[in-house]
Amino acid sequence: MAQHDPWLLTPGPLTTSMTVKQAMLHDWGSRDAGFVAINTHMRKRLVDLIGGGKDFTTVPMQGSGTFAVEAMLGGFVGPKDKLLILINGAYGKRMAKICEYYKRATAVLEWPEDQPVDPAKVREALAADQAITHVAVVHCETTSGILNPIAEISKVVAEAGRKLLIDSMSAFGALPIDVNSVTFDAVAASSNKCIEGVPGLGFVLCRISALEKTKGNAMSLTLDLFEQWQNLEKTSQYRFTPPIHCIVAFDQALTEHEQEGGVAGRGGRYRNNHKILVDGMRALGFETLLPDRLQAPIIVTFHMPADPKFVFEQFYDGLKDRGFVIYPGKLTVADSFRIGCIGRIGETEMKAFLAAAKDVLNGLGVASGRPHNKAAE
Amino acid sequence: MAQHDPWLLTPGPLTTSMTVKQAMLHDWGSRDAGFVAINTHMRKRLVDLIGGGKDFTTVPMQGSGTFAVEAMLGGFVGPKDKLLILINGAYGKRMAKICEYYKRATAVLEWPEDQPVDPAKVREALAADQAITHVAVVHCETTSGILNPIAEISKVVAEAGRKLLIDSMSAFGALPIDVNSVTFDAVAASSNKCIEGVPGLGFVLCRISALEKTKGNAMSLTLDLFEQWQNLEKTSQYRFTPPIHCIVAFDQALTEHEQEGGVAGRGGRYRNNHKILVDGMRALGFETLLPDRLQAPIIVTFHMPADPKFVFEQFYDGLKDRGFVIYPGKLTVADSFRIGCIGRIGETEMKAFLAAAKDVLNGLGVASGRPHNKAAE
Repeated sequence: MAQHDPWLLTPGPLTTSMTVKQAMLHDWGSRDAGFVAINTHMRKRLVDLIGGGKDFTTVPMQGSGTFAVEAMLGGFVGPKDKLLILINGAYGKRMAKICEYYKRATAVLEWPEDQPVDPAKVREALAADQAITHVAVVHCETTSGILNPIAEISKVVAEAGRKLLIDSMSAFGALPIDVNSVTFDAVAASSNKCIEGVPGLGFVLCRISALEKTKGNAMSLTLDLFEQWQNLEKTSQYRFTPPIHCIVAFDQALTEHEQEGGVAGRGGRYRNNHKILVDGMRALGFETLLPDRLQAPIIVTFHMPADPKFVFEQFYDGLKDRGFVIYPGKLTVADSFRIGCIGRIGETEMKAFLAAAKDVLNGLGVASGRPHNKAAE
Repeated sequence: MAQHDPWLLTPGPLTTSMTVKQAMLHDWGSRDAGFVAINTHMRKRLVDLIGGGKDFTTVPMQGSGTFAVEAMLGGFVGPKDKLLILINGAYGKRMAKICEYYKRATAVLEWPEDQPVDPAKVREALAADQAITHVAVVHCETTSGILNPIAEISKVVAEAGRKLLIDSMSAFGALPIDVNSVTFDAVAASSNKCIEGVPGLGFVLCRISALEKTKGNAMSLTLDLFEQWQNLEKTSQYRFTPPIHCIVAFDQALTEHEQEGGVAGRGGRYRNNHKILVDGMRALGFETLLPDRLQAPIIVTFHMPADPKFVFEQFYDGLKDRGFVIYPGKLTVADSFRIGCIGRIGETEMKAFLAAAKDVLNGLGVASGRPHNKAAE
């Protein structure tokens, strides 16, 4: 049994540093000048991460990443607008679901979960439907772990004179998304992914000139992005009680992100985690769903082994007993499970995980993680 | 300067115990069986607090108390319903604002901030408008600190065959609200008030037979109370990432609430805090906005002193330097400030606060906290 909390090899919430958690050992009033300064600093640092300068602002949103995505879509896509949603997994579908609630006009382009969004198809769709004003895409779809080509997509969208909204939940802080290489009006993410904070806060990085035009669009008081922004600008305070401890921890997480070398440093550690994981799992016979060129170093989907002695629940429990939490699959295209590479984990933990995986396989009497011959399925 | 975090004499977020905060020093996966058990336990305990038995269920909502209030109104008040909102402060007004966003039919009864909701007027309004299906009221309006007579109001509403929705944010856990003495379909509250957890979670205690009929009413995906409930019942998990650390801390706070003797014990300590505060402040010449019979032992509004040497910002800062955070006023009926009696504070802290207040007044050269003769205003 593990003495440490289990290492969370999941798409988040994930393992955080003890110093991030210890930042929560204080109480602050929500109007306290110290807390207000931390919150203002946090908002500024997030803009810096995308090189947003004076053109962008951070609008934090209580709740979770999905609360921020809903606030983004509800704010930027007005009643006269039409949103093209690019879907290749559960998080793209979730954006479509939000628009159903809001009864916003939408169009959808869909790909199988193991294929990236194709910018050429986006170009065609935009040319064919002049009513489309905005396009929404998921940066890294954790359904499969696939990386969507957001720079290319943003080029196509900008060339067609439309606006791009990005759900960068699982990628933000580890994979670059810079205003100089990606053109967008808004990008949503959360406290508990690659910045390595605790869950409780989402945020939307917004192009101010676009955000200014969203007044009156929101259909929810609490999720009104424009009013949330206005109130923060005017009073430096939240309209409704913020998750103070989570925000203070998030600011500490941003400090540790910076100390690690920002997006390059954080992404570098995750790429190393990813390489150790994939090499090691392949050595055990497992196969990844995606070819390496489509895979983000965030979370990896593996095919279920063919060996009937491999029972996923037993594999999961054996790993849990050894101190590692992995993640079930969510795919419709293949029977699979997932292992994350993000959070406060590194080479030591990834190697220990591989040793544990080998140990559990041995215990189950599974000779190899090799899946069914896919051609034969 | 205070070595301890400042004591938060505010309407919340408030001072919590170190053991509540220390519960956040762990990382949990959101599907982790241990976390799932804590969350299920937390939901059950909240139902127990109102004596809800099998007729009620807890639907937690990420965000804050207002997120839960919005989810409650958005869920229970359908497109064919009409809500009568009873207003005597900012939180009643906020409920009206939510209904504006949702374009729900509403009627409003309003009282000055220093007067309680009058059940007789509610009876008249319900008799006069048969279209009204639901009534919403705030239990303790922290705008003034006034206690609304929810048992009497619930009787009137039930007799008229309508449904009651209660915002018990600042009272829940300290003032009794029991299904045997108050008839209601839903009551909303949050983690960071009288249960003494940290902010990040709201919840709605729902009558199951009423909740079952709310399917399809919600106009927001994330705030869809019915779907949140269904998913928790079916999978024991949240639809979207929960604020795990906040929830684990909240469960610890519920344990400490129970150890203190539940609602009676917690309320007893707050009543004692309240008495010490009011007696002491009156001894310094201050006057409360409300007569004692209308005052909840949650937060007290004091009139601003008449002495021109009393400058509120200096009083506030002097108290902050001595380790106490008080709260500005929010009233339109009088120039005032507020002091809270809730959170992990007791007799020692209240007496120390009074000594600090006296010290600050002396420093400012203020002889008495006596306000202007109100008749002369």
